[in-house]
Amino acid sequence: MLTFLLVINIAGTAAFAISGALLAAKKKMDWVGFVFIGNVTGIGGGTLRDVILDVPVFWLVDWYYVVICSISAVITYFAAQQISRKSNALLWADAVGMALFSVLGAEKALSLGAEIPVAVIMGVFSACLGGIIRDVILNDVPVVFQKEIYITASLCGAITFCVCYGLLGIIDFYAIGLGCVVAFTVRAIAIVTKLSMPAHKGLQ
Amino acid sequence: MLTFLLVINIAGTAAFAISGALLAAKKKMDWVGFVFIGNVTGIGGGTLRDVILDVPVFWLVDWYYVVICSISAVITYFAAQQISRKSNALLWADAVGMALFSVLGAEKALSLGAEIPVAVIMGVFSACLGGIIRDVILNDVPVVFQKEIYITASLCGAITFCVCYGLLGIIDFYAIGLGCVVAFTVRAIAIVTKLSMPAHKGLQ
Amino acid sequence: MLTFLLVINIAGTAAFAISGALLAAKKKMDWVGFVFIGNVTGIGGGTLRDVILDVPVFWLVDWYYVVICSISAVITYFAAQQISRKSNALLWADAVGMALFSVLGAEKALSLGAEIPVAVIMGVFSACLGGIIRDVILNDVPVVFQKEIYITASLCGAITFCVCYGLLGIIDFYAIGLGCVVAFTVRAIAIVTKLSMPAHKGLQ
Repeated sequence: MLTFLLVINIAGTAAFAISGALLAAKKKMDWVGFVFIGNVTGIGGGTLRDVILDVPVFWLVDWYYVVICSISAVITYFAAQQISRKSNALLWADAVGMALFSVLGAEKALSLGAEIPVAVIMGVFSACLGGIIRDVILNDVPVVFQKEIYITASLCGAITFCVCYGLLGIIDFYAIGLGCVVAFTVRAIAIVTKLSMPAHKGLQ
Repeated sequence: MLTFLLVINIAGTAAFAISGALLAAKKKMDWVGFVFIGNVTGIGGGTLRDVILDVPVFWLVDWYYVVICSISAVITYFAAQQISRKSNALLWADAVGMALFSVLGAEKALSLGAEIPVAVIMGVFSACLGGIIRDVILNDVPVVFQKEIYITASLCGAITFCVCYGLLGIIDFYAIGLGCVVAFTVRAIAIVTKLSMPAHKGLQ
Repeated sequence: MLTFLLVINIAGTAAFAISGALLAAKKKMDWVGFVFIGNVTGIGGGTLRDVILDVPVFWLVDWYYVVICSISAVITYFAAQQISRKSNALLWADAVGMALFSVLGAEKALSLGAEIPVAVIMGVFSACLGGIIRDVILNDVPVVFQKEIYITASLCGAITFCVCYGLLGIIDFYAIGLGCVVAFTVRAIAIVTKLSMPAHKGLQ
């Protein structure tokens, strides 16, 4: 189980980093920009979660996450064209990562004694903040605020897990699984049906 | 006194959150964007203050602040048009919030043993950083850097409080009151007289 | 030695703050914007380093750094034209600051027990993040990601120091000196030869 989680964790982190590096490619950055944006996207959300929870930032110890993000970014530098043609595969890897991080982020917060609403927020932070910081650095208004059903999916997964584990007392194995399935399903439906959130019609 | 402070605190937080959500409306975001930007504006400044002071982030315990910001944002989503017509009321609620946060932020820092210059900075952070982060995420150059007499008002209030309480030893009740009055008055004069800061004439 | 380091430290911080304030001048900000951006550029990198390492943020105690940045920013407000004519002097002062911060940031992390890869990252954070945050706030895509050989120079210096001090056990005096020389030399070559990083050719 632990090995399985670790593998998904790494795959999800790499998918995040690659999506960041692809944006760096669009902005015609150099390799330093690729590596920086790759890391921000891959581990930025978890970093902010840990800073706000005031626990040691995870990659200070497990610094192989930085290595994974950096390698993913460098590979993307040399193979951006080919990778961007596989954007569908990337989209699904990203969805798996999002689902997992939403639940594991919430689980980390609960295990540190956070209350349920805070744990839900931390799950969403883990999954979504990296991408938001990436967009802010690259001067795009974050797409997750405008139409993509992404934070919503993350929220559904984190809430499902927190209710099952924190309120109903379901054991963590099943609660994590259920939370991931819910987050992934919501996101998958959005991807397949190209459903998007209704944007506000603005102010006159 | 405490209840009174709490009520202003909540009203100020809601005013901040609504001002953030109105900007989200201008950018035609979805409800997730409204809630996120509302929270960033309402509690972002205090979050950064607490992270830098290395004390528990206030909304990890008092998570009703997140609820207040989220509800304010959702109401704004459905009533943006009507609320933006009351922009005058909002401007004044925001001024009250700014005055209070400037002083209470400084008070929190002093009570944690910070020196006076640091406490002044923390007061300004509490009052102004949420709006700055909001503008950065939404890709606007923060208006408080260009002409609005806002940070200046916050600075006056925080300095007044710190001098009265930290240097002159005036009891907190009066020092807080005086600091709030100074911050609010400076801001009120700027609003009423439409006074603005002289912008730098730039470089040739 | 300590006095010498302190003097360079202050000079480097001031150079950073002035470079930030010059950008504020270009954006026609008011004096509040100058002071804020000056401080962000001068002490933002070290602040994030300390927050992530979870140690007290350095300017909470040594708040004269804030004073240095603020004074530098105010002077720049009144003399932006003259200072921008000396942009060459500024470029070199900035290079000295970058070299020093890269090494001292890494040294701080190592002395706190961080592993070498983490220490290298913290060195680069100390030297480069302030400028990145400055660009993000001012809505520019950070120039250090697009062509400037700046983070690369910082990286070379931090790695040199960490290898010498952390791996080879060379005493800190020489390791610090060597790291600074390497970082400065790489940056100096880039400045003199106008060498720049190859940007990615983008996506079709």
